Formats: sequence, C-alpha cells, structure tokens
Amino acid sequence: MLGLAARRGLNPSQRLFLRPQSQPSRFSAPTTFRLYSTELPPKPKRSALQRAATVAKYTGYVGLSAAFGVFVLGAGFLVHDAFTYTERHVERVPLHPLALHPECGGPKNLPIAKVQVDDDEDEEMKKLAEKPRLVIVGGGWGAMGALQTLHPGDYHVTVIASETFTTFTPLLPSAAVGTVQVRSLIEPVRKIIARLRGHFVAGKAVDISMADKLVEVETIHTNGVKENIYIPYDHLIVAVGSTSSTHGVPGLEHCFQLKTIADAQQIRRRVMDNFEVASLPTTTPEERKRLLSFVICGGGPTGVETAAEIYDFCQEDIMNYFPKICRADVSIHVIQSREHILNTYSEAISKYAEDKFNRDGVNLVTNARVSAVTPTHVLYTTRDKDGKVEQHTIPTNFTLWSTGIAMNPFTRRLTNLLPNQVHKKAVEVDAYLRVKGAPPGEIYAIGDCATIETSVVSHFMELVDEADKDKNGKIDFEEWEIMVKRITKKIPMAEKHVSKVKELFELYDTDSDNSLSLNELVLLLEDLGNKITALPATAQVASQQGKYLGKKLNKLARQKASLQARGEPSNILDDANLRPFQYHHLGMLAYIGNAAVFDLGPWSFTGGLAAMYAWRSVYWNEQVSARTRALLMIDWIIRGVWGRDLSRL
Amino acid sequence: MLGLAARRGLNPSQRLFLRPQSQPSRFSAPTTFRLYSTELPPKPKRSALQRAATVAKYTGYVGLSAAFGVFVLGAGFLVHDAFTYTERHVERVPLHPLALHPECGGPKNLPIAKVQVDDDEDEEMKKLAEKPRLVIVGGGWGAMGALQTLHPGDYHVTVIASETFTTFTPLLPSAAVGTVQVRSLIEPVRKIIARLRGHFVAGKAVDISMADKLVEVETIHTNGVKENIYIPYDHLIVAVGSTSSTHGVPGLEHCFQLKTIADAQQIRRRVMDNFEVASLPTTTPEERKRLLSFVICGGGPTGVETAAEIYDFCQEDIMNYFPKICRADVSIHVIQSREHILNTYSEAISKYAEDKFNRDGVNLVTNARVSAVTPTHVLYTTRDKDGKVEQHTIPTNFTLWSTGIAMNPFTRRLTNLLPNQVHKKAVEVDAYLRVKGAPPGEIYAIGDCATIETSVVSHFMELVDEADKDKNGKIDFEEWEIMVKRITKKIPMAEKHVSKVKELFELYDTDSDNSLSLNELVLLLEDLGNKITALPATAQVASQQGKYLGKKLNKLARQKASLQARGEPSNILDDANLRPFQYHHLGMLAYIGNAAVFDLGPWSFTGGLAAMYAWRSVYWNEQVSARTRALLMIDWIIRGVWGRDLSRL
Repeated sequence: MLGLAARRGLNPSQRLFLRPQSQPSRFSAPTTFRLYSTELPPKPKRSALQRAATVAKYTGYVGLSAAFGVFVLGAGFLVHDAFTYTERHVERVPLHPLALHPECGGPKNLPIAKVQVDDDEDEEMKKLAEKPRLVIVGGGWGAMGALQTLHPGDYHVTVIASETFTTFTPLLPSAAVGTVQVRSLIEPVRKIIARLRGHFVAGKAVDISMADKLVEVETIHTNGVKENIYIPYDHLIVAVGSTSSTHGVPGLEHCFQLKTIADAQQIRRRVMDNFEVASLPTTTPEERKRLLSFVICGGGPTGVETAAEIYDFCQEDIMNYFPKICRADVSIHVIQSREHILNTYSEAISKYAEDKFNRDGVNLVTNARVSAVTPTHVLYTTRDKDGKVEQHTIPTNFTLWSTGIAMNPFTRRLTNLLPNQVHKKAVEVDAYLRVKGAPPGEIYAIGDCATIETSVVSHFMELVDEADKDKNGKIDFEEWEIMVKRITKKIPMAEKHVSKVKELFELYDTDSDNSLSLNELVLLLEDLGNKITALPATAQVASQQGKYLGKKLNKLARQKASLQARGEPSNILDDANLRPFQYHHLGMLAYIGNAAVFDLGPWSFTGGLAAMYAWRSVYWNEQVSARTRALLMIDWIIRGVWGRDLSRL
Repeated sequence: MLGLAARRGLNPSQRLFLRPQSQPSRFSAPTTFRLYSTELPPKPKRSALQRAATVAKYTGYVGLSAAFGVFVLGAGFLVHDAFTYTERHVERVPLHPLALHPECGGPKNLPIAKVQVDDDEDEEMKKLAEKPRLVIVGGGWGAMGALQTLHPGDYHVTVIASETFTTFTPLLPSAAVGTVQVRSLIEPVRKIIARLRGHFVAGKAVDISMADKLVEVETIHTNGVKENIYIPYDHLIVAVGSTSSTHGVPGLEHCFQLKTIADAQQIRRRVMDNFEVASLPTTTPEERKRLLSFVICGGGPTGVETAAEIYDFCQEDIMNYFPKICRADVSIHVIQSREHILNTYSEAISKYAEDKFNRDGVNLVTNARVSAVTPTHVLYTTRDKDGKVEQHTIPTNFTLWSTGIAMNPFTRRLTNLLPNQVHKKAVEVDAYLRVKGAPPGEIYAIGDCATIETSVVSHFMELVDEADKDKNGKIDFEEWEIMVKRITKKIPMAEKHVSKVKELFELYDTDSDNSLSLNELVLLLEDLGNKITALPATAQVASQQGKYLGKKLNKLARQKASLQARGEPSNILDDANLRPFQYHHLGMLAYIGNAAVFDLGPWSFTGGLAAMYAWRSVYWNEQVSARTRALLMIDWIIRGVWGRDLSRL
C-alpha cells in the first residue's frame, strides 16, 4: 500500500522534471520509479536554479491542491454548520384530549397512557397510533438489536428505560480510567427511535398486568417524587439486563460494579481520588500502599480488562505527572475463583493473559474465594495442598465486583407471576424467545435477563404424545426419529447433541428391544438437557436476540397485513411459520494491557500492540452510530497525543 | 482567499493541458485564469479521449498526493501512538524521612508539610526544594496566569486547589447544554505545573498563620474524613475566586449557579430532566409549562449566554427528537435589575442583544428585583409608572442565579485577621497586588477574590508628609505636582483622573490662595477616589494579574540572585524597582444565540453567524493548552454534524 502510493504519488513531479526542455536532472526519482520517464525524448540542459524553481513550483502545486482540498472541505463544513442554526418556529401542536388528561384504570387504578403527547402531531404519527403497540423495556444491546431491525410504520413503538441512552458496554473498562470518554460510548435512545418515529418514556418498569396488557412504570420527577403510570402493550419485549450476583458475600456495598456509565464515572473518580490522596504530604506509607492497591474480584473479561486499563493508566499517565512514589506503590490484584483467568476462553489465551499480567507485576490470585469485603480490606480464602483453608487479607481502597449475574426486581416480579418460571437467575423463554407461561406472542425476553430453556425432559409428555403414534407406551426407532425432529424444533441448542440419532437410540436402549421404554426415554432426555449449555450473558447474544425479534415482528406484521387484505383471520402465532432463534458465535476478545486476545472458536489469536489495534477496530465497527465511531477514534488519538485526562471529575 | 487558492491551485492542470503537443482545449480553465498559459506556444491537436485521460491522470495524481499525505500522517501517528504504550518500570524512589512522618507545629499543632513526597525524587527536585516556597491557593485564571509566566527553577511551587483542574470559565454556558463537553474546558493542574516541576495539593485552604507563614489546608479522604495540614510558604498568592452574592434574597438554595464544571453538569442534567419529565404521558399541561420555563436571574454575560444556549438547544435539538409540544411550551426568562441587559457593554450592543432576544421570544424583564425563589416559582417585583411596586410570579423548575460576587470563607478569614481590611466583597490589595496589612512581599491576592484599593484619601497623612516639603500644613502647586506623582504611583488607576494637574488644583483651591488647605485636599482626594472604578471581576483581569505576579516574581528572583552573588543583602521589596500592576482592557464579548457581540472599547461590533464564528475563534485562541483547543474544535464540529448529545448523564 505504502509502496504503491509512493510510486504513483511521486510520479507527476518526476514526469515534470523530464519535460522536452530539460535534461534528466539530479532531482529525478530513483531508478525504480523511472518506468514512464524513459518513454520521453532527451531534454535540453537546465540550470540548477531553474530546476530548483520547478521543484519548488510543483511541490507548491501539490501542497496547494491538498490545502485547497482541505479548505473546500472546511468551507463546505462551515456552510453546512451555518445551516444547522435554525430560526424555525413551532406552530400550534395538536394534542389528543386523552394525552392531556389520561384515564385511570388497571389493577392499581393508575393513569394509563393510551395516547402519547406526540401521537396527534402529524399524519404519520396519527397512522402509527393505530398500529399494534410494541413496548420495549430496557435500552441495552437487546433493545438496540430490535430497534435497528424493525421496519418503520409497522408498530407504535415505545421504549421504557431509566437511562435515556444506550451504552457500548464492552468499552466501560476503558472509560473507567479515561482512555475513552464516557460520552463516546453512549447514544441517546431518542436518536435511535427517531427512524421508527417511536416514543421514549424515562422510567423504570416495576410491575406488569398480563391480563390487562399493561406495564407499570415508575417515573421520577426532578424533585424526587415518584409517580407510577401504566403503559399499554400488544407486544412486550423485556430487555432489562441483570444485576450482579452477590454469591452471599458480605460487604458488597463497599464494592464498585462496572455495568453502567455511572459505574465507570464513579470508578474513575475513585481512582483519581486515590492517587490525589496518596500524593498528599501527610499520607502515611501504609495508607499510601492501601490507597494504591486495586482489587478486582472476578477474572472474566470485565475484570481482566479493568485491571489492564488501570495498569496502563499508571504506566502511561500517573508516571508522568504524579510523584514517582505513587507509581512505585501501586499494586493490582485479580482474585479468580477458577484455576485460570478468562476461563471461558481457550487455554492458550488464558495462559497468554496470565503471562502478560505476571510480567506486568499484576498479582493473580486463582482458586480463591472472596469471603468478605470491608471499607478498607478484601478477605479471601485459598486451599493449600492438603485442602486446608487459608485466610488472606488485602488492604485496599478500591474493590471491583464483576462476577456472576442475578435478576433485577422487574424480572423477579415477572417470574413470580408465572408458576412455571423456576430458573434462579433469569426469565426462562422458549426457542422463540417467548416468556414461558405468558400468553403466547405477547411477552418476549432477551439478553442478560433471559435464558433459553435447556430442559428437554420438561417436554416429556408432549413429546411422547406426538411421537408415540401406535400409543403402545414405547418409542421405536421410527418414532424416535420423529421425536428428534420435534426436539430440535423446540430446543435448537439440542441439535448437535442428537445428531447421531441411531447411536443415541442404541446407547439408551439398555434392554436392546429396539424400542425405548418411558424410563429409558426419561434418562435419555435428562442427560440430553444436561449436555446443553445455556447461552452466555454477553452483548453478542443480546444483540442477536434483539435482531431476531425485530425481524420476526417485521415478518409477523407483513403476514398479518396480507391475511387481513384477504379478509382472513390474522391472529397467527410466531411459531407457526417462523424459525426459532439460533445463536451464531462470532468469537470473544479481551484487552489485556497493550495486548489483546481473540477466541474465534476454532482459531485463537494473541498478540501485542497489533492485536490491540485489531481489538479496537472490532469494537469500532460494532458502534451503534457514526457519531460514537467518530468520538471513539478521536478519544484514541487524543490519548495518543496528550495522554489521559487526569482531572478528578 | 478562495479566488487566490483556486487560481493558483488550478494552474498545474491548466498548464499541463497546454503542452506543445496539444491544442488549446475545451478543458482549459476560464479566460480569467489564462494569465500564464498565453506565454506557451500553440499546441498540436489531441483527441478528446487523450485529453480526458490526461485530466483523469493528473486529477488522480493530485488526489493520490493528498491521500498519500493523509496516509503518511496516519502512519506517523500510529508509530507515535505505538510508542506511548510503555513498559517502563519504577526503580526504588528516594524519600525524605520528613516526607514519611511530618512534624507537627503551628498554632493548631497540625502536621507541617515541610517536605513533599517528590522533593528527593531526583537532583533537579532536590535543588528546587531549597528555593523560596511559592504557594498558590486556587486553580483558576489568576493561578494559571502566574504558572504560565513563572520561570522554571526559581521557586519551589505548590498549588493548593480543591478541583484538580483549571476551567475555561467563559464557555461554561455552552457546556451547560452540551454544545461543548465539560472535559474540553478543563486542563489538569498537574499537567500545567509539570513545566515548573511544581507540586499539587488537592485540598481547600481554610486558615492562615501569617506569623509562622503557614496555610492551613483541609484535605478530604475518600471516606469523607477531613484532615487539616499546614503548607509552609515564603510567598503566597491567594487566587481563590469568589462565591455568588445572595443580595439577601431568600431561597437561593433552589437556584443553580454557573461558576464551576460541577455547576454546568448539574444544569445540563436538570435541563434534560425537565424535557424528559415534560415528555411523560401523564404530565399535566400546567406542569409541562412549568418544567419548560427557564428563569435566569442576572442580565450579565453569563446570564445572557446561558439563555442563548438554552434557546439554541431547543431550536436545534429538542425540536428534532422530542415531542413538538416540548418545544412549543418552552419559555425563557431573563430578569435584570438594571434598565438593559449586558449593561456594562456599549448601548448599541445592549440594544442589539435585546432585539435578538425579542425576536427569539426570550422574555426580558428589566428594572426588576427578584424577591424570593421557591422550588417551584421565582417571585420578582417591578415598579409601574407611578413608582408603585408590582409583584410577579413565574412558575419554573430551573432558576439560574448569576449576579454579583461575595467572599468565600478563606478570604473572609484572611480579611478578619487584618484590621485594615474593610471591603465587603473582596480582599483589598495595593497597586502591587500585595494584601493590605499583611507583611509586605509575602501575601498577594489576585482575581475575583481581590480588589485593588481605590481610596486615595486613606493615604492622606502619608501623602501630605511626603509632599509638604516646607511643612506649612498647606500644599502649593509645586508640592501638588509631587503629590500627583506619588498618587499615580500608589494608585495607577487614578492616573487619568489627575492628568489635568493644574485644573484640578484650581478647581479645589476654593479660596484661590494658590495652595490647598488640608480641608480642601481631603475633599479633592475623596472625590478623586470616588471617580476611580474598581476593576471588574472578570477572567481577563485575573489572568493579567496572575501574569504580572509571575513576571514580578521572576524579576525578584533574578535581582536577589545577583545581589547574593555580589554578597549583598538580598531582602529587597517588590515596590522598589518594579512597576505596579496596570490593567489593559482588551474588550468584552458575548454570545447571544447564533449571533455575538463584541465591545472593544472604542469599537463595538455585533453580528450573526459570522460574529458567532469570530466569538468562537477568540475563545479558541485563549485556551490554556493545545489539547483543549483540539477538543473544543472537535466539539463544535460534532455539534454541527450530529447535534448535541441528548443523554441525561
């Protein structure tokens, strides 16, 4: 690329030196670039001054061309910019009477928002107000996936979220030390729903009435007063994410989490605080060491990346502007319950990351359990060779808790309302992402708050009913083949485990009577269910689920419209003609401090700076908007030129 | 500019078309650009295809040159960026025993930071530790002015401030609605003092012991525990700014201020909150109007710019992404106690700004006094034609208080310690910016927290003593001329008022005895003092005062060094050889919503977008670092392309 650009880029000036009036000059390009110049006739003599003048002139021309380009670009931008300052004035805005004074109703007799304030704003909005109401609770990866794939005009879309923006969560560890700015990771939900002309309600979903199809939303006024209202839905997508699991450890209120922008801001403030207090002339050496000890509980990608970012921050910025003792006294600890950090990645990757951390002096504590967190210490236990428990203590003023997920209050409420929801950490959904037990086609759950059922045996009766054609209470091989098809339809994740149909049948046919008794079948289905691993709680899964739902709702709207046009009943269900959700694993990556690791299924890839740039470009491509893409690029450049901002803000 | 660039920029291709082999072609530039081409001989015919190919080729060359330039730049940056990720490790850091365990002392027996933790870090730091201790309290315009002009190596510099960064205050109104980001307005103090190898102490000065030359600083640990320490000084610069004056109005705790980054962040959050709550489907029309009513108390530049920025935000962003009713229901009110807004500017400027605001529908209330602020209303009074007081109420959920200044606790404490400090709003300093009553050459005060004395009569005895050579208790004209010189030396701001020496003398010599009796003199000096106006509390004044002090301290250090070299006593005072502070007014400017006004003394200038761009470039030039300059430019471009960020953060 460089060679090509140079060869072609240099050519004009070269050719110009070799015009008929002039001799081959000392200024001509090296031999390898002579390709075209040999075609020209020999040139008369020219003085060195003339030649220099020519060089200067054409160098000037090229420079001026470039400057002219930049100037035109700048001027063009200024013209554009000037037109963004508008003097438009607003006409009278038509408002539906119900938008001014909503009726009360529902189980708790709260105001029901049947009409939004902008539903009567123009003709397009009026038409949309008659479409089925699609309500999305949450503004994370799942919600964005759905919002980005939905077609405008099919649904009256309302997004309910307590944060008014969506966050690019994978870069939160970077934002926590200021490698990138928090505002570069967020995009206002209102800008994303503008394409669908959707509505946004700033609030927290707290309850649901499935009979009345109402979501109860808690809104908070600026004076702190809370007011609950109902938002009616025809389709509801629950995408509220999760909270951190406490694992029963006491003192987690003294820990930081890293799930939201507010978390990243708090961490950044605390990190700066620690360094500032450590620099005070009266801080004791012990206290300084405690202030500069950073403990991360959890060796998954978030924990590892946060440790790496804190290390980078110390190396690249603290070193230059704080007393050197502040750099010397820093210690970073990662406490992991498993044998390796990044244990969901391939072994080579774990090894590479551990080697890197060991080289950097990051203290890795594996096979350890955090037993308590206090405001000044983290306590953990390990087992020695004989299995005896040993107690350890790390003095610290910064503890990050980044391990495990748990249900948030809304999903807990939802599962409590449904008798067949038994999963402890998430809402169970079927292969079509419909909440199990809820009226079909009305409530979906996606992302961290949802888990696709993996238990095959819970469908036992149904499967036997469908497959046992001769009703003899036994499943012969032909019937088993039918049953396998049903299983893979219901639980697509089981597919690879039932692919060897014949072998599985023979393995569990213990009495070799060429049929499975119901007892044999139960055992088979139970073992099968245990083999299926639930999808991880990652951005990738949430995003794919959101996109799946968006596309499905588009198809449903089209199918219903064509049925209605033919005058047929249009209440079709989404498992009739549509495929279940299927997850495509695109790989995992993690930043480990001026180096990065990639686990792409069959291939894995580890490396230093080059891998880091690759890691950045993957995330750069995944941005939800061109704006955040530009902001991120700028942040990385700014860091390269001036380092991170050291302000405690 | 455009014409020139075009003419010169286009020339290479033009010339190339007109080579000896070719005819004057249809592709050649217009006649006005033919200047050089006529010098060339006529050219043989060429086919259109040949010509097109040539055009394409050279266009390509220019494009490639530019692309190559960008590529080289990008590659160069990547190489630079790659080298910013260092693997340096820290050696053992030498530490002075006193830095580990500071001695206690002073009137309150607190730890005294005689040695900073980095004083023994290297040879340069060790040398600096023996220099006079210059302590600067505050991190605003005044402090920056001093830090930027000080020479490295002359002083052991320590900056004490509760914020770890300096703020570009004039753009706070822009940051309050997200036109620029708050991080684009701040620069870490540590980066600024790095040039001087200075020290930074994050804390708040609360008391002073002038006898022991100790400043008492309150530091706050991350758990909220406060610890007070002493920082010793040889020279102290007080540059702590001011707080807002309450003018005795009740309920100011319900108001926002706009003096710090935190203020701007709070305002931005409230503005977004108001729009989000106003968009909720259950907000009543009256409540919506109240939420969208923005009241600004004070018609100075800060108030006017904030009103303008809020107006812009509504026009350019709210309009596009919020229900239209939210734009229609917005009202912006500016309450000003004087007859005009921007009353310190020229009349034409006030008029222009008022016309602009009236056109935009901003409600200007002049000659009004705010009588109370409640959480939901602002109450104010006006007088009707007969002078009768009328009461008014504006329902609102956002009130900005931006009028007047008052002393903050540290300056109040300082003035309480000095018997001759009687000014109510600021620390009085002499013409050399030395705090009046403090040991000379030890304590300076600059910026909003200081005011240069304007009272001539307070020097009465001293002036008479010096001027009355014949000690007859009368001042004749010759003696008056001496006195005028003394006056202009003591109070340079009096200069223009005593320039007509003879006339003044005759005017006050009421008994025409060609001499001023002491009674006549007192009257003259009192009237003179009243004519002098104090310097305004602006960034410009603070910055110039800081720079003056920086330069003065440089000179003092040089003079002392040369005296010491000659073995002479080096305790010289700064009014001996150095000039007093003189303020050079560079003009004022203000942004009034897609328009700007400039008051440059004799000239004033008002205008629309062009003036706005000029306003931006003035502020852009005044930035404290290239980093914030780049960030600001980027913010303006980002706003132009994607609008403001609507996230409530």
